[in-house]
Amino acid sequence: MYAIGERINGMFTAVKGAIQTGDPEPIRDLAKKQVEAGANCLDVNVGPAAADPVAAMEWLVKTIREVTDAPLAIDTTKPDVMRKGLELAGPSSLINSTKGQQDQLDIFIPMAVEHDATLIALTIDENGIPRDENGRLEIAMRVVAAAMEKGLDPSRLMIDAVILPVNVTQPTPGHVLETIRNVKVLSDPPPKTVLGLSNVSQSTQLRELLNRTYLVMALAAGMDAAIVDVLDTALMDAMIAAEVLLNRAVYADDFLKAYRA
Amino acid sequence: MYAIGERINGMFTAVKGAIQTGDPEPIRDLAKKQVEAGANCLDVNVGPAAADPVAAMEWLVKTIREVTDAPLAIDTTKPDVMRKGLELAGPSSLINSTKGQQDQLDIFIPMAVEHDATLIALTIDENGIPRDENGRLEIAMRVVAAAMEKGLDPSRLMIDAVILPVNVTQPTPGHVLETIRNVKVLSDPPPKTVLGLSNVSQSTQLRELLNRTYLVMALAAGMDAAIVDVLDTALMDAMIAAEVLLNRAVYADDFLKAYRA
Repeated sequence: MYAIGERINGMFTAVKGAIQTGDPEPIRDLAKKQVEAGANCLDVNVGPAAADPVAAMEWLVKTIREVTDAPLAIDTTKPDVMRKGLELAGPSSLINSTKGQQDQLDIFIPMAVEHDATLIALTIDENGIPRDENGRLEIAMRVVAAAMEKGLDPSRLMIDAVILPVNVTQPTPGHVLETIRNVKVLSDPPPKTVLGLSNVSQSTQLRELLNRTYLVMALAAGMDAAIVDVLDTALMDAMIAAEVLLNRAVYADDFLKAYRA
Repeated sequence: MYAIGERINGMFTAVKGAIQTGDPEPIRDLAKKQVEAGANCLDVNVGPAAADPVAAMEWLVKTIREVTDAPLAIDTTKPDVMRKGLELAGPSSLINSTKGQQDQLDIFIPMAVEHDATLIALTIDENGIPRDENGRLEIAMRVVAAAMEKGLDPSRLMIDAVILPVNVTQPTPGHVLETIRNVKVLSDPPPKTVLGLSNVSQSTQLRELLNRTYLVMALAAGMDAAIVDVLDTALMDAMIAAEVLLNRAVYADDFLKAYRA
């Protein structure tokens, strides 16, 4: 699984404080720790409170680049913040994310092509989040068609079927698994699939158990990538065991150690 | 999930010893503990070493019945041992198990009809364990056809797609998941699906992690029942979380406690 570390996000108090005071240490530390814990990519989100989000993104990316060359997922809905992040982050970046409506695709697909980036597209459009797996697949189809039309190879697309908290809507986790399975037949090569995993357990009491259980299900459904807390060791253990059981990682007696090495 | 407790098995030293000495206490204790831990049914296997397996089965079932009325899964390949177990165990018993070849089906399907029992059928035949999911499905089809012909409703059938240790054959866990999905379209009502879960981790070093990870995958693929170690709390927690995420158990803030209550 392509693991995108979720921790550099202005929503978290330590990151918000670092941005406000300009203290690079917490950011460097989170970047290093997440890469060591197995992150293939680091999400970067300035948070809702940043006074100057373009400047905050610039500072975050430059600070991360002092300690790691790992690919970054620039996490914003604002085109100017996204552009600044992509310019500084360099190759193999992710655009996180676009919605599936035309006006958004018109902005972010060309941006992905220009920066040779991978585009995460949410199955949300002007009507909001679809009620079920059919609505999600319909938006995914439109996104794939738009990407092909504008010269972005579907393998550079990651469809995010938008998981919602299980305590808000209990049928949604099942719908999202079905969407992950169905997206794979939309094109050849197929688009990739991704999830912002932690959302499934938002405001629940047993977050870690729900997160790792749902991650295993999504991997079995064919999910390629996920935005996760890579510092949650039990979550990463479950991910590695799933990869071994799905024959995507080679078995070894201590496969946890082998995978991490 | 219909949880079948695996612990009353003569393969385990304590059970073997109890059978040999005729000490009922370890058996009563395992029966009570497994029911308290959430077993819907108890597997009963005299083990390979029993000198008189019919007498051993009789003693085991009678001993279990001193403490619980839970349904029993009579676990033997021997028709006379099976018959004795079914006669004493009473209603809602499981026959664990028949193979998918004709001579075996000719014995065990009529026995299931006669005793109003549910029949676990392994996707193994005279040629052994199939190489992939197609071979497994083919045997499952033959079993379903034979059951219908002999008057056993498919809903009284449980297909066991035969998991093998992941360190012996790494593609098999994936084949079994595919079989669990496919079996559901064989008839209406469909046969149920079941697994002897612990086999997936036989002779590996990280057994519990592999067991609970694979259980979650199998549940997401639609598995109805499993023969498991219900005394493994982390396994049962994962099972309950999976049931909640698949909308088969109602969400509550402490859903582990709610499910167990």
